[in-house]
Amino acid sequence: MQAEKITSLQNPRVKQLVKLRDRRPRDEAGVFLVEGYRQIRRALEKDIALSELYFSPDWFLGENEPALIERAAAAGAALFELSKDAFAKVAYRERPDGLLATAPQWRRSLADLAARLDAPAGGRAPFLLVVEAIEKPGNLGTILRSADAAGADAVIVCDPVTDIFNPNVVRSSTGVLFSVPVVVEESSPVRAWLRGRGIRAVATTPSADALYTDTDLRGPLAIVMGSEQYGLSDFWLRESDARVRIPMAGQADSLNVAMATIITLFEAVRQRG
Amino acid sequence: MQAEKITSLQNPRVKQLVKLRDRRPRDEAGVFLVEGYRQIRRALEKDIALSELYFSPDWFLGENEPALIERAAAAGAALFELSKDAFAKVAYRERPDGLLATAPQWRRSLADLAARLDAPAGGRAPFLLVVEAIEKPGNLGTILRSADAAGADAVIVCDPVTDIFNPNVVRSSTGVLFSVPVVVEESSPVRAWLRGRGIRAVATTPSADALYTDTDLRGPLAIVMGSEQYGLSDFWLRESDARVRIPMAGQADSLNVAMATIITLFEAVRQRG
Repeated sequence: MQAEKITSLQNPRVKQLVKLRDRRPRDEAGVFLVEGYRQIRRALEKDIALSELYFSPDWFLGENEPALIERAAAAGAALFELSKDAFAKVAYRERPDGLLATAPQWRRSLADLAARLDAPAGGRAPFLLVVEAIEKPGNLGTILRSADAAGADAVIVCDPVTDIFNPNVVRSSTGVLFSVPVVVEESSPVRAWLRGRGIRAVATTPSADALYTDTDLRGPLAIVMGSEQYGLSDFWLRESDARVRIPMAGQADSLNVAMATIITLFEAVRQRG
Repeated sequence: MQAEKITSLQNPRVKQLVKLRDRRPRDEAGVFLVEGYRQIRRALEKDIALSELYFSPDWFLGENEPALIERAAAAGAALFELSKDAFAKVAYRERPDGLLATAPQWRRSLADLAARLDAPAGGRAPFLLVVEAIEKPGNLGTILRSADAAGADAVIVCDPVTDIFNPNVVRSSTGVLFSVPVVVEESSPVRAWLRGRGIRAVATTPSADALYTDTDLRGPLAIVMGSEQYGLSDFWLRESDARVRIPMAGQADSLNVAMATIITLFEAVRQRG
């Protein structure tokens, strides 16, 4: 393994890795961070082309790290070996495991999604999840996992507050970000696109009259979820084809948006059989 | 407001509050920590008798804190005003808001739960959640919230790895710990107790043949969930009346135990009408 050695905390690459925790430098560079053995392994399994892999044997927790580094190098990643101190500086996690990679960001458009839905994959009706302005990275990551578990075709993130390449989204998605198609787009074109394709938009809101279990969730479907603090915007409440609510027995905030999402997704799975 | 002033970081109360983050000193003292405005307000709303309230105006984020302190004092809490430094030491959170309370722990037994179920509360069939050896405080807190939202009568925590008074359980339960009955008990007496009361135990496990949506979840019911790492023990898999699985479309670990719990609970809610 050929790896450039870095020991200085002032090394430009070290400084850049720290900057990549923030959105603007991340977007400017067009890359994002993938930290830790499990995330990096998942990225490689899902054929994410890692640009660079930074490692520091002083932090390794096991014995499988060299094999993973070899695999990343074979897939094209440039290797950098960091001193213990230098790695401590670049690590985002509280307990680093000596592995940190960068990968190029990607963008998927509604057109990409259309092409995917039109591909001959068994003729299933589209099953989409639309989320509006989710704030907490952990919720967005959990929502991606839920969409994956439920077999949704894609997640459409409208008017994002948290970007999907936030390190905590990457982490909390446990690799699902690398596989489930995610489209980031404004609400208005998304609504038009859904209508154009005959996909029903079903909004989940505590103010709805209909229970989610009494509403038909079969056929071409987009479940629409609002933000943690404000719920769905007037736009989506007005423009959706149906509004449904989840019955709540306990205190008003016992269900957060990630929990409401998974409940609704799996009711759709049940109905779609 | 009469409040004892504390400025020394060596004050015995300061040292004791730090110790209460750990289980053993917490259990020895028979108390637990309630930190932050929202948690403390919830505790007061649910008639939790706070023993002591520590506050530090230097950390206050808003203007409602004095009213909350008055309310706690009126309910019997002893007040202590801490210097900024002293509060920084006792605060468990990364971003303290200048409020930290202690409250006595409680224990609920199966006999307490039986009395509750036998009370004339409309004659509903019992609806319980049993969780085995949950490890992560955040998951246990989320599970408590789910049980509250689904209207479960109680949560039975078997063979606990994380105790319910862990500060992260308190926090992630968003106050549900203060209202949903939680019984901590070993698996074997719990199983016998359920059988004695004619409550069906339905275990959720990926290895089951039956789908959770194809299984009758009406009538007296205990949904049984296993631990994050090991799933359910052989004991519960063998001794349960039915085993069900949630269909999984994506990668194997997309559903964690908290997500599987909420899906199963809300399917039971749907069936129970």
